[in-house]
Amino acid sequence: MSVTVVGSIAYDAVQTPHGGRERMLGGAAVHFALAASFFDEVRVVGPVGDDFGEDEYAVLHGRGVVTDDIEHVVGGKTFFWKGVYGQNMNSRETLETDLNVFETFDPKLSEASKQCDVLFLANILPGLQRNVRRQCERAKWVALDSMDLWINIAREALIDAISEVDCVILNDAEVELFTGEREVVAGARRIMERGPSTMVVKLGKYGAALVTPEDSFWVPAFPVDFVTDPTGAGDSFAGGFVGCVAAHGGDPTAEVLRLAMAYGTAVASYNVEEFGTERVARLTGEEIAERVEELQRITSFDARPVALR
Amino acid sequence: MSVTVVGSIAYDAVQTPHGGRERMLGGAAVHFALAASFFDEVRVVGPVGDDFGEDEYAVLHGRGVVTDDIEHVVGGKTFFWKGVYGQNMNSRETLETDLNVFETFDPKLSEASKQCDVLFLANILPGLQRNVRRQCERAKWVALDSMDLWINIAREALIDAISEVDCVILNDAEVELFTGEREVVAGARRIMERGPSTMVVKLGKYGAALVTPEDSFWVPAFPVDFVTDPTGAGDSFAGGFVGCVAAHGGDPTAEVLRLAMAYGTAVASYNVEEFGTERVARLTGEEIAERVEELQRITSFDARPVALR
Repeated sequence: MSVTVVGSIAYDAVQTPHGGRERMLGGAAVHFALAASFFDEVRVVGPVGDDFGEDEYAVLHGRGVVTDDIEHVVGGKTFFWKGVYGQNMNSRETLETDLNVFETFDPKLSEASKQCDVLFLANILPGLQRNVRRQCERAKWVALDSMDLWINIAREALIDAISEVDCVILNDAEVELFTGEREVVAGARRIMERGPSTMVVKLGKYGAALVTPEDSFWVPAFPVDFVTDPTGAGDSFAGGFVGCVAAHGGDPTAEVLRLAMAYGTAVASYNVEEFGTERVARLTGEEIAERVEELQRITSFDARPVALR
Repeated sequence: MSVTVVGSIAYDAVQTPHGGRERMLGGAAVHFALAASFFDEVRVVGPVGDDFGEDEYAVLHGRGVVTDDIEHVVGGKTFFWKGVYGQNMNSRETLETDLNVFETFDPKLSEASKQCDVLFLANILPGLQRNVRRQCERAKWVALDSMDLWINIAREALIDAISEVDCVILNDAEVELFTGEREVVAGARRIMERGPSTMVVKLGKYGAALVTPEDSFWVPAFPVDFVTDPTGAGDSFAGGFVGCVAAHGGDPTAEVLRLAMAYGTAVASYNVEEFGTERVARLTGEEIAERVEELQRITSFDARPVALR
């Protein structure tokens, strides 16, 4: 199997109540690729500028990520995002977004990227997501992420893109914005009416839900001792989740989808422990497996009957 | 076994995006008692005024709740609360709080109430909670609820009250306000340093966490099709949780505490489906058991190992 991801490669500046970084490797495609790299061969498609350096490539290569389709736009600058997290780490404010080379990004996939078995369309213009999806005809399983911006200004294009994928990943606020439904399951099912067989609804620090036409599955965030930086948690989750689906052949059973939710949760929990990619870059498979087992332990109970009056 | 609950008995006026009620039975002790009544004999201790009528007693008696210790304050009026829920049902605004007979409430327990095996101190002045706790010397297991108001204005008294109970039930915002800790487990353990062996942290529409000195357990809210009115959900949860502990003898093992979390979750999920006590008043034990089983099904996964790279 092989996984292709198309999305942003970025430098992030982040300030949290516990410190910050002026310039660190980030972007949805990067966080996704590092997380998915534990499960399968991953190819990243996305643009960078002249400022993207050897150190950044080294982080990706350190996890075996194939960077042949990272497009170096000569004379350009890499996408830059600057944000600050409030005392409540669940809220953040964007201080600066310089799209730079990302503004004119037109994904060009090599033959190897097109031949992927599993495809992840990270959060980019829905029209571009559709374009990429069509270039990867062989892909057995395709997942898509999006955001409030596209729901607001490119709703029809997003609906078209959604209709051509197997799985949509959004957070609960986005599901409500998109469908008007407050309840996670009802909202997810409305989106699945457009085509996808699976929805993942991210619940921020509270975990995530998996919704299919007949079923739902709920997993809490793994309780870490300390959250240093939530940036990239959602994309790390997606990387673990989609990677696990790929590792099981890209045609997931209900059981594999649940397992994938657990793996996504485990990888994301490491991501938030340090800034940017710092923790995941030196993560081990043993550490991931440990938290998946622990996650099962802290969510299991024996539903034995009680004599009720 | 028998359970005593001390707390508010109220009339609520509630407005939600789906309608409202001008005057309905409510109050923490009422919601708790109805939920706990499925598991054990429950006695309610709390004050009402001349306006508290036969219809309200009938709701409690319909579930076998013992109302001998409901104190009728002659010439007084029953506690009244009026609130409105925003489009996002997780936020609500209080429009009116008339303490009425609750303002001078000084709990007087009959001998039968004092002889309870399990005691629930619903959200009242911490000094009164302590006073009641001491009247129930025989109680094997005591749980306490509180709120931001007491954390802010009666912190020391609340710490004293907490030091004399087995279990504290708060929501995550209250835990953070009380301890300064953002992470649920860290905050809960800070509170347990004061004495309790168990903490339940309610996460609103996202579920609840059980924290003990060595362990944690996480359960999502049961996904209902439609939330009509969240009023009393927390107290219904507490009633199912504490009731289940009582049904198992009031000296809960780790396994019983987890099961109790599931039963609390199931009862609370019915509570929110209709206004006030309307749904729980006609709930059956079979319906509760059904959702406990379903809750296990939608949270279970098989943590089998995956070959990681």
